[in-house]
Amino acid sequence: MVQPVSAEADNNNFEARGLSSSHNLIENSKDIHKVGLPQRRKLVSEFADTFKETFFADDPLRPYKDQPRARKLVLSLQFLFPILEWGRNYNLSKLKGDLIAGLTIASLCIPQDIGYAKLANMDPKYGLYSSFVPPLIYAAMGSSRDIAIGPVAVVSLLIGTLVRKEIDPTTNKEEYQRLVFTATFFAGVTQAALGFLRLGFLVEFLSHAAIVGFMAGAAITISLQQLKGFLGIKNFTKNTDIVSVMKSVWGSVHHGWNWQTIMIGTVFLAFLLSAKYIGKKNKKFFWVPAIAPLISVVLSTFFVYITRADEHGVQIVRHIDKGLNPSSINRIHFHGHYAAKGFRIGAIAALIALTEAIAIGRTFAAMKDYQLDGNKEMVALGTMNIVGSMTSCYVATGSFSRSAVNFMAGCQTAVSNIVMSLIVMLTLLVITPLFKYTPNAILSAIIISAVISLIDIEAATLIWKVDKLDFIACMGAFLGVIFVSVEIGLLIAVGISIAKILLQVTRPRTALLGHIPRTTIYRNVEQYPEATKVPGALIVRIDSAVYFTNSNYVKERILRWLRDEEEQLNAKILPKITFLIVEMSPVIDIDTSGIHAFEELYRTLQKHEVQLVLANPGPVVIQKLHTAKFTELIGEDKIFLSVSEAVMACAPKSFEVV
Amino acid sequence: MVQPVSAEADNNNFEARGLSSSHNLIENSKDIHKVGLPQRRKLVSEFADTFKETFFADDPLRPYKDQPRARKLVLSLQFLFPILEWGRNYNLSKLKGDLIAGLTIASLCIPQDIGYAKLANMDPKYGLYSSFVPPLIYAAMGSSRDIAIGPVAVVSLLIGTLVRKEIDPTTNKEEYQRLVFTATFFAGVTQAALGFLRLGFLVEFLSHAAIVGFMAGAAITISLQQLKGFLGIKNFTKNTDIVSVMKSVWGSVHHGWNWQTIMIGTVFLAFLLSAKYIGKKNKKFFWVPAIAPLISVVLSTFFVYITRADEHGVQIVRHIDKGLNPSSINRIHFHGHYAAKGFRIGAIAALIALTEAIAIGRTFAAMKDYQLDGNKEMVALGTMNIVGSMTSCYVATGSFSRSAVNFMAGCQTAVSNIVMSLIVMLTLLVITPLFKYTPNAILSAIIISAVISLIDIEAATLIWKVDKLDFIACMGAFLGVIFVSVEIGLLIAVGISIAKILLQVTRPRTALLGHIPRTTIYRNVEQYPEATKVPGALIVRIDSAVYFTNSNYVKERILRWLRDEEEQLNAKILPKITFLIVEMSPVIDIDTSGIHAFEELYRTLQKHEVQLVLANPGPVVIQKLHTAKFTELIGEDKIFLSVSEAVMACAPKSFEVV
Repeated sequence: MVQPVSAEADNNNFEARGLSSSHNLIENSKDIHKVGLPQRRKLVSEFADTFKETFFADDPLRPYKDQPRARKLVLSLQFLFPILEWGRNYNLSKLKGDLIAGLTIASLCIPQDIGYAKLANMDPKYGLYSSFVPPLIYAAMGSSRDIAIGPVAVVSLLIGTLVRKEIDPTTNKEEYQRLVFTATFFAGVTQAALGFLRLGFLVEFLSHAAIVGFMAGAAITISLQQLKGFLGIKNFTKNTDIVSVMKSVWGSVHHGWNWQTIMIGTVFLAFLLSAKYIGKKNKKFFWVPAIAPLISVVLSTFFVYITRADEHGVQIVRHIDKGLNPSSINRIHFHGHYAAKGFRIGAIAALIALTEAIAIGRTFAAMKDYQLDGNKEMVALGTMNIVGSMTSCYVATGSFSRSAVNFMAGCQTAVSNIVMSLIVMLTLLVITPLFKYTPNAILSAIIISAVISLIDIEAATLIWKVDKLDFIACMGAFLGVIFVSVEIGLLIAVGISIAKILLQVTRPRTALLGHIPRTTIYRNVEQYPEATKVPGALIVRIDSAVYFTNSNYVKERILRWLRDEEEQLNAKILPKITFLIVEMSPVIDIDTSGIHAFEELYRTLQKHEVQLVLANPGPVVIQKLHTAKFTELIGEDKIFLSVSEAVMACAPKSFEVV
Repeated sequence: MVQPVSAEADNNNFEARGLSSSHNLIENSKDIHKVGLPQRRKLVSEFADTFKETFFADDPLRPYKDQPRARKLVLSLQFLFPILEWGRNYNLSKLKGDLIAGLTIASLCIPQDIGYAKLANMDPKYGLYSSFVPPLIYAAMGSSRDIAIGPVAVVSLLIGTLVRKEIDPTTNKEEYQRLVFTATFFAGVTQAALGFLRLGFLVEFLSHAAIVGFMAGAAITISLQQLKGFLGIKNFTKNTDIVSVMKSVWGSVHHGWNWQTIMIGTVFLAFLLSAKYIGKKNKKFFWVPAIAPLISVVLSTFFVYITRADEHGVQIVRHIDKGLNPSSINRIHFHGHYAAKGFRIGAIAALIALTEAIAIGRTFAAMKDYQLDGNKEMVALGTMNIVGSMTSCYVATGSFSRSAVNFMAGCQTAVSNIVMSLIVMLTLLVITPLFKYTPNAILSAIIISAVISLIDIEAATLIWKVDKLDFIACMGAFLGVIFVSVEIGLLIAVGISIAKILLQVTRPRTALLGHIPRTTIYRNVEQYPEATKVPGALIVRIDSAVYFTNSNYVKERILRWLRDEEEQLNAKILPKITFLIVEMSPVIDIDTSGIHAFEELYRTLQKHEVQLVLANPGPVVIQKLHTAKFTELIGEDKIFLSVSEAVMACAPKSFEVV
């Protein structure tokens, strides 16, 4: 059996050839070698790389490489309009899948649209408008095959609350709608701009945890809003926070509530939820929850029509006009202070809409294994909303629920969106008047049953298990939304997410390493109790890049390790510590403050007659230490390739001790 | 010579005992072992630790451990008033050092104070006031032995500009001074609060690079302000940005400038700078630049007095009253909108003052090797400014230049501050009237020669060499200060510093690893050209924690590595890649988004019939992957202790290939 030291030796010997020349620190020179200092790179190329990785991480220009100009033109057209690419090899079998999927999501979206429009304080027709034009645009420009485009609950609520803060939809309908279209326009501009400037990664600053919390909060807020239609309450609060909603609910307990409405509502909500349950239970019944809403609309409308329940206080949709989207270009504020307001609201809505759409797109892309260019998607979604804002649509995006149905119904391409939008068009042209008698309670029931699935308890519990700080972000967003408002919840979510990163960078972990008997490995003594400390040497590992945020902490933490250790030694009489070995492997990067801290650490240690030794600094770190002349300060021969080599050089006796 | 594989084997064999039980993946089970899964810790203890590391990193309660109550009381008193601790073993020899140091810094601070007071648009006496009370308080409460307390240039300028934005000091002197004291009060409160709440680490969000840039910018701005006194210009701009200053300088070229003033100024500036040079050249002449200002004040005052140059347009200090600090409690706005304004200004000033003081304290503490509790310092500085605000002082802090002199003059304890403040007291009581004839040009010259040393070209060049992004932060702060305003510069500095961190977390490095011939080591193929790729396997290293900000990037970047690689393989006919080994050593942490990304990565790879394999995940990461059941998903036996083991298990043939 080979002795560890000799094994080490061989080991290093092999390394030697892979690495730069060795130098003599202890007699047997071939045991130790220098850490390879990577050749310095040109500033320009370095910068170019950083730039590329930051903005063109997905390397979108790769297909253009050495292609004739004509081909490049075609490619760029296909890049902008993927339909040109997949359209050419489109066939009947695909059409079949898309037809079924299209019909299914159409039946689901029509009632949802009418309900969501009410969330945005718009007339029902605008919901349908937004399911007609945007899907067509997306089908041509989008690269996701499974996403179902249209108005969604959360964005509708967001638009509804934010715009109502500025203008009252009941007293000043015209101006309200103008601001909605303005917001939609700027939402589109924001999305397209983000995509065009390759700033897509900004969307990712909303962490998964934050989104889970935010969505759950939004779902509850939306459901609470439905109590109005569900209980048939006439004068309902304008605020969305749970407190004031509950107030106005209890306030109207004695008068205000309408039992017929409640009855209809509860019956159909029960129906919808059980349909949902069946769909969940058995995947092949996915169509049950998909068509349930339409069925309940038809049934309830018919029921109200024959019983004239509307004359007994059951609120109904009442007027809903026929016909396709009118133009709304002349209704958008392109300047003036309403434009500014529209921009603010639009930007927020854009962010949420993007987060939802990109998340959906990515999920299904991963399932069917095709690449999705986030920035390209943003351009598509942006253009879609810009055009939408000019054709009386409000912000549309990808819908969780409908996309899932679309996927399960076996959609093949974005054609399913075209099918859906055509059916919506027919609806608008022919049957909208029939919705006149549809009771609001049904719409409320539909919305509740739709948003209920945004509450993802499993995810929340998983987050709690995995990462407590993540969970705080999640709850922060959740509580922010239900107790204050949607945008505050959003703010909290982003805030906590970023604060978390900064905290992680401010207080990195450090660990004391010990030698695992009869090996050349050094591990955290807390994690491996059998690991023995090396007499006369203290080995510390820093588990983070050393930046200005943590440089002083790291320095003082290391000194604390030393202090604690020396106290223990004074207790039992052991050799004084003469070497402090810092394991640098996890130190990804270092900045000037970090180097400063190391210089101060070095000086302090000198006072204590303790020698600072570095083990295995990464290429970036060693280069920076070298440029900053720190390597000269502590001496090249104090930097080793591995902890074991450092120990061998500093405290060779320790091997006999072991 | 031992074969690498067998060396590996031995190696692992040693490890085996150090690690948890192994399992059979390939026949020779003892070659491979599991990654140790650390036992799960109690939530409370985990939280407690995080909390401790975040807020009590320096472990201030350690001396209280198992002490009698009486002792604890004494300790807490000593904690608040370190003077009780070091005062007891104070002796004559120390006093000698402190006396000399105190006298030196006094001679330096008196002229500076008068000048700095003008920077803050206050009467000269307030500068002296601020060098009398605060040093006494600090001497009792502070734990730095070398810091010299008093008004400093940058903070004075900051107060001057910020308060002038609210109130005009010439037309409404009384209200202006009231707001200054209010700001000082709230600056003290902010500092004390930060220290008391253990939020000291917030100060560190100002990176070294940002400070270098900010200080240089401030120095230039201050020097430009001095052109007023230096050229004897009467109507000077109120703005601090270089453009408007230069305008008003050239605007007054023909009239306005006063040659006598300019002559006096230049002569003495030359004298001061050469004194500075001598001091720099030969450390034992440190006292030359220290007393030069006082000398030039005396000489110039005497000169003006006999020549009555003031009657030829040479501006002089004119009135400066005798007597000690009057109380100013009743002049502080404790409520009302001026209180709010005072708070805003105070908070900014507090941050800058702290950064400067803490930086100085740390530097000298490191030199003389004693610990400095940042939070404790903040409490001391805060109290000092609160008391100061009630005794007609404005914000005082540690001064770079005077602290350096203090140190070189051989100060032993904070007593040197007491000596200084006593001399300032005598000055206030006896000789202030003599300053009547001191020409402003001299004060300007003194300030210029003082702040000039805040411009640290060396540091800037080093930053440029070491880290380009740091340099951008540095220049951002610099240009922000000189072209816009001090607070904007500050804002830019903090902004860029934080943005830098976020960028680093958003776009982490990834590297392709290759096998270094005849070793068990796998290194970056770009850094080590001799490293050979393992046929049939792709080895990728992620150089960062995987968080929501980078999870998608990391996933897609890895897939891109795979795509590129496969294309190359198709070119030359080589075995298809069947294993993707991810080296996790530098992955310090992972969050739910990160785990999601890994799950998606796994699914995508499955579609490509590529097996995902993890090598050496850290304790935190492995635990989280375990909780999230990801380890079950890919299979425990796909997680290895090291890359070489992973390769041995996945592509054992590769060893014959090498």
